[in-house]
Amino acid sequence: MAELGEFGLIAELSRWLPPDPRALVGIGDDAAVLAVPDGRVVATTDFLLEGRHFRRDWSSARDVGHKAAARSLADVAAMGGVPTALLVALAAPPDLPVRWARELAAGLAAECARVHPPASVVGGDTARADAVLLAVTALGDLAGRPPVLRGGAVPGDVVAVAGPLGHAAAGLALLSAGLGGGDPSWASLVTAQLRPAPPYDAGPEAAALGAHAMIDVSDGLLADLGHIADASGVQVDVDSAAAWPAAPLPEAARAVQMAGPNSSFSRTSRGIPPEHADADGLAQGLAQRLAQGLAQRLALRWVLTGGEDHSLVATFPPSVTLPPRWRVIGAVREGGGVAVDQTPWAGDTGWNHFA
Amino acid sequence: MAELGEFGLIAELSRWLPPDPRALVGIGDDAAVLAVPDGRVVATTDFLLEGRHFRRDWSSARDVGHKAAARSLADVAAMGGVPTALLVALAAPPDLPVRWARELAAGLAAECARVHPPASVVGGDTARADAVLLAVTALGDLAGRPPVLRGGAVPGDVVAVAGPLGHAAAGLALLSAGLGGGDPSWASLVTAQLRPAPPYDAGPEAAALGAHAMIDVSDGLLADLGHIADASGVQVDVDSAAAWPAAPLPEAARAVQMAGPNSSFSRTSRGIPPEHADADGLAQGLAQRLAQGLAQRLALRWVLTGGEDHSLVATFPPSVTLPPRWRVIGAVREGGGVAVDQTPWAGDTGWNHFA
Repeated sequence: MAELGEFGLIAELSRWLPPDPRALVGIGDDAAVLAVPDGRVVATTDFLLEGRHFRRDWSSARDVGHKAAARSLADVAAMGGVPTALLVALAAPPDLPVRWARELAAGLAAECARVHPPASVVGGDTARADAVLLAVTALGDLAGRPPVLRGGAVPGDVVAVAGPLGHAAAGLALLSAGLGGGDPSWASLVTAQLRPAPPYDAGPEAAALGAHAMIDVSDGLLADLGHIADASGVQVDVDSAAAWPAAPLPEAARAVQMAGPNSSFSRTSRGIPPEHADADGLAQGLAQRLAQGLAQRLALRWVLTGGEDHSLVATFPPSVTLPPRWRVIGAVREGGGVAVDQTPWAGDTGWNHFA
Repeated sequence: MAELGEFGLIAELSRWLPPDPRALVGIGDDAAVLAVPDGRVVATTDFLLEGRHFRRDWSSARDVGHKAAARSLADVAAMGGVPTALLVALAAPPDLPVRWARELAAGLAAECARVHPPASVVGGDTARADAVLLAVTALGDLAGRPPVLRGGAVPGDVVAVAGPLGHAAAGLALLSAGLGGGDPSWASLVTAQLRPAPPYDAGPEAAALGAHAMIDVSDGLLADLGHIADASGVQVDVDSAAAWPAAPLPEAARAVQMAGPNSSFSRTSRGIPPEHADADGLAQGLAQRLAQGLAQRLALRWVLTGGEDHSLVATFPPSVTLPPRWRVIGAVREGGGVAVDQTPWAGDTGWNHFA
């Protein structure tokens, strides 16, 4: 990084990013100038900090670029906007390999290319720090439509989601359990954690369909629906059967539980002394069913409270015909807060419905 | 900070910041939406990192808020834009006192109020970190004018500056020498370092006057003029007599040199054995004049290479009548790079004109 320098890094970023006619002034001046024909601009900023949001031993530089861009781009989509441009502030240790910074730029550019038309990096900042610190600002265009806010949900709306739920949380659990490089059947979950792929197009699509409220799932489905509930003065109720975790989530949950020495699964197994377990097929079958139940429960917890998928969740009038990628998972009712199967949810650590 | 939480902090920021009709959606949704009647938006992002750009034992939280805002707002002004809005990403240790975060918000708001009409904080992000990390994005409006870029300078232009030069560098030297809390005559220099006050209005003023190129002095006058020289394919020549440091810069330089055990001043004094210096008035007078010369030279170095004042330096056609706050300090010539008194300048550490 010290070798590449601020201007080298900026040049490197430019190399990966095709010129965008909307960027009237791009990288290299005091500030960027972006064409905003709509007369309004969507703007959001997000940190991606090493040690807090990513680990360099788990994430490649390209992963970090994808994730840093995705976090901010998804916020624009969640307003119903089309992301147009990024400003990328990058602080790094001086001994960060040049190759790492180049791969980061490639990841940022590749994630920008997932937007239609591709967003571009129009500016940024560089600084020296002990760890890799990113702060990414995304700008976007509402294309003449009103923004879709958190506060527009009304009782009777259906709640629908575009994109996966719980995959990033499962990926984190797999990585934490040392299973990140393991079974290829979980590779998609690990990728969901390292390189989330928000369905950007679904944001403007929801706006065009008349969505009443929308948010991206960053803190966790219930936490984020809680923001909609609070802002709208309604209760948002999730139907657990509709949100039920599908393959490979329960299998991944079982693997995580078996890998963890202090997991519920291990504790359950330890409850049956080996001499009896061997002898008693009935007890073993029971333990297995119990373990499966516990794995299912962990998988459901990932779906309901795991964040970082950056899927989009929105409420729509019940009359709207939703395209197939929008899965209905609940309904908006009178009241406040979030509920699962019409039972109020009591917070991140105390979700009591399955207690 | 942990006590206040993300939403508490956001609420705190909102409390300090009056609602702005241009902020169609402000703090509290996935992203902000800003009215951009011009059809173009100016956007820039800058870090302000503890330990790198500020020290909590030197800067109050309010100072940090002012400086974080000023760095980004000045970049918008340097494009000829009127800053309209900030996005503030703040990471902090969980034990950061709530009072500190409140004062930070007050500083951000107060700096926004230095813009006419006041800019507002429309969004941001919070995270946990070991140190206080800020990444501030500023958005701005060009009011129908073309942006003033770095690349527009042409031979024959005059170079003029609005705002002080070398004051922030002097303040840093005073603080580093342990003289920060001392003589009230240097308080303005210490304040210039801790709380730079860019002349935001001068940016759009320069654009309206037909400035050919502009930049804010963040890296150092010659370094920043070098960016203009490189982008414009010209030589920018500073007239040292016009840029000559005025009070209290030379006095502060002398104090800094006397305070430093390894300073040129001390070395000069040490060159005269006390018994002779006492005896020989001529030698003492010579030493004093030499010391004054060295102090003058340090002060000039602050002016030419000290950054962080965030004053605006621009090139104008010679026909333009400049308002009094624009001081002419040089001229644009054929050639490349920067020069002082028509002698090419040889870099930060090797400025040879006064060697």
